[in-house]
Amino acid sequence: MKSLLIPIVGDTHVVDQPDILHRHGKDESFHRAMPPDLVVYPETNAQVSEIVRRCSERRCPVIPFGTGTSLEGHIAALQGGVCIDLSRMDQILALHASDLDCRVQAGIKRSALNQELAKDGLFFTVDPGADASLGGMAATRASGTNTVRYGTMADNILGLTVVLADGRIIETGSRARKSAAGYDLTHLMCGSEGTLGVITELSVRCFGRPLAQSAAVCSFLTLAGAVDTVIETIQCGIPVARAELLDDVQMNAVNRYSDLSYPERSTLFLEFDGTEQSVAEQSQWVAALAAENGGDDFVWSTLTEEKTRLWQARHDAYHAARAMRPGCEGWVTDVCVPISTLTECIVATRADVDREGMLAPIVGHVGDGNFHVLLLVDPRSESEMATAHGINDRLIERALSVGGTCTGEHGIGYGKLKHLEAEQGEAIDVMRQIKTALDPFGIMNPGKVVSAVHDTH
Amino acid sequence: MKSLLIPIVGDTHVVDQPDILHRHGKDESFHRAMPPDLVVYPETNAQVSEIVRRCSERRCPVIPFGTGTSLEGHIAALQGGVCIDLSRMDQILALHASDLDCRVQAGIKRSALNQELAKDGLFFTVDPGADASLGGMAATRASGTNTVRYGTMADNILGLTVVLADGRIIETGSRARKSAAGYDLTHLMCGSEGTLGVITELSVRCFGRPLAQSAAVCSFLTLAGAVDTVIETIQCGIPVARAELLDDVQMNAVNRYSDLSYPERSTLFLEFDGTEQSVAEQSQWVAALAAENGGDDFVWSTLTEEKTRLWQARHDAYHAARAMRPGCEGWVTDVCVPISTLTECIVATRADVDREGMLAPIVGHVGDGNFHVLLLVDPRSESEMATAHGINDRLIERALSVGGTCTGEHGIGYGKLKHLEAEQGEAIDVMRQIKTALDPFGIMNPGKVVSAVHDTH
Repeated sequence: MKSLLIPIVGDTHVVDQPDILHRHGKDESFHRAMPPDLVVYPETNAQVSEIVRRCSERRCPVIPFGTGTSLEGHIAALQGGVCIDLSRMDQILALHASDLDCRVQAGIKRSALNQELAKDGLFFTVDPGADASLGGMAATRASGTNTVRYGTMADNILGLTVVLADGRIIETGSRARKSAAGYDLTHLMCGSEGTLGVITELSVRCFGRPLAQSAAVCSFLTLAGAVDTVIETIQCGIPVARAELLDDVQMNAVNRYSDLSYPERSTLFLEFDGTEQSVAEQSQWVAALAAENGGDDFVWSTLTEEKTRLWQARHDAYHAARAMRPGCEGWVTDVCVPISTLTECIVATRADVDREGMLAPIVGHVGDGNFHVLLLVDPRSESEMATAHGINDRLIERALSVGGTCTGEHGIGYGKLKHLEAEQGEAIDVMRQIKTALDPFGIMNPGKVVSAVHDTH
Repeated sequence: MKSLLIPIVGDTHVVDQPDILHRHGKDESFHRAMPPDLVVYPETNAQVSEIVRRCSERRCPVIPFGTGTSLEGHIAALQGGVCIDLSRMDQILALHASDLDCRVQAGIKRSALNQELAKDGLFFTVDPGADASLGGMAATRASGTNTVRYGTMADNILGLTVVLADGRIIETGSRARKSAAGYDLTHLMCGSEGTLGVITELSVRCFGRPLAQSAAVCSFLTLAGAVDTVIETIQCGIPVARAELLDDVQMNAVNRYSDLSYPERSTLFLEFDGTEQSVAEQSQWVAALAAENGGDDFVWSTLTEEKTRLWQARHDAYHAARAMRPGCEGWVTDVCVPISTLTECIVATRADVDREGMLAPIVGHVGDGNFHVLLLVDPRSESEMATAHGINDRLIERALSVGGTCTGEHGIGYGKLKHLEAEQGEAIDVMRQIKTALDPFGIMNPGKVVSAVHDTH
């Protein structure tokens, strides 16, 4: 393949050094590295198209790659092949500040985009833990701490450019805020994890920075009290901007990692956006709900620096957790459930983890009904992995039994194939029919999402 | 077919009386009636499945039918066949008030659903002009006056039950607020206009009734002033709940139809939701923007009765317009554009309509960048229809040239096939591939959305 790709992008942009290959076959999770045969760095849609066309002719697997920060083995080259690294396609193509949207290449990272948008008083809201690329975030249907107020990637993409399995380049959507024009290919591609095509450009919504903003931290006597506070906040329709839960285990990790001294109890990190008046109103309400549920007084951060520090601690949760057990790998599983069942799900999960004697903090975007269990594992220990599998399986069974989903925001990769089957039933056959129609040779990120179930841990 | 269907639903539920057939082949627009051969009234998912399976075996077209209030010929039986009328599947299957969602059968109408939800202090937000069925609204990706605040059907559906072209019954989505589990079949089905399957059940979001609400009417010296006020409102991030434009022609129609006495100038109908404080704050801001753009003082309605009257007048806009020219048919076209281009698009469209001497009010959900031209036509007059076609074509060209869409909320049916081609380019081939994969015999609502372009006006 190398000699076929060099004429497209030049010889410095087709790489087969083992360390580079390894880095492109390993995500941020415990899933083992499965390196591709080549990594190629295109700079234009036309180059991506030509690369995919060549791969298609040779029936060679194609794996799109953003920053490699996914968590379910999404980028593992299960059958080898060509990894298309989009990091050189990282430009903002157009910023329409008065329409609150912009057009970007898929390789741009969210922090870089936000730096540019800040110059116009705007921000892009979706903030997964990692500084991921927008293309990767679209491909995995990512969300984050702001989602309770501003939505997921699915809610914030207006249109895409996608290179299909045969090299065709299509544009989906438009810059209109809504449309009833034909099948919704934008949403079909969003969350397809590179199995239907390579996302190369996105039009995304942005928002004006709120006039006022304040953040608060509140710790609770019980895990249930913290979760109940958020449930009641949502049920009352209070438009909280962020409502993040960190349990006692995670708070211990955060204090150690970020040199903080929060109480090591279940804690909510909250943010309120709006005008001075509405922020004050919202926070009074939530403070009252917290007090009724065994919460301490709110500790407020209003200075930008303090807030940044607070949210940095939240975003560092994964690294903080991993630092609790040096040398371990992280197995971050996530589910999302109807909010009325959230307390029961989280409490039962905490009990299960403790019963199994596993070190595993729980954090969550609880306003969405979404939470993560950060299983700290040694993948070389068969018994430990079996325990972790058991916890994960029971967690997902618990979520599905109350009408939830096996993943709120991390996606399927190959790590959750069997759980997708359990959740979707016959609908997965429809997904396979679509996959076959658009990628008849099965070259696009093979073994992910719609693959027959297999286990490659 | 009749004898094949009677065993499934009983002989009273398979109908071939000409008047019933006619009513099922004619929507609310100028598109001429194209009756099906049979209308069948199932009551269960299993019956729908069995009906479709029988039709599939015979390669007989299937047209799902909600209330017949669509506007682009969606329900016309272009090739005859069986119309599946879902009006007997109109139950609320589950109401989860504490999760702010409910499960309904597809035939329930939005007003009936809202009557039930009101008992729990909840409401379903999407409100197209007609009292449509939820299934029909999902199939056409409908929206309405609340969309600027609460989203379209696409934003408010959590999951669907769909009967596919071969009779398979699938469930998409879940009750979780977000999910990254596999391809987004919910969004694929939403807006597919019955061409991929029959939607039989929906899980939808509902919202708590706001603590405070007030509505205002404001008339403007110029059309541009009215639209600019809304654009600035959106750009400032003011979370207005409704922002509806009615131009001078429409205001004349509304006054006559509903016996009101508003000034007959371009007018905004506005609504603010929230707490007492936030409603007051929002309305002060918008009033200030209106004043700067040549708007009169707001005329407030705070009593429930007054507000109901005000919004009823808005919802009656289509009937009011048609009453201006007794015996005419309505050709309601709609586009949606990036909001910064909205004033220019509406003003140019008004000028075009006036130049052509056509009677055609303009109304719009302008907060979304979405507006309608209500062309009042006599379909028997070739020259008039040619004029109307010209206005519609130029309107859509104008919308596409600024990055907009050929339909914000009405859909494609067969009335906008060529415009979908113009908008989507190669992406329409992908839609066709999906259609072929899921409906290989082309029995599901043939001739709509993804059909080769043809003209059946």
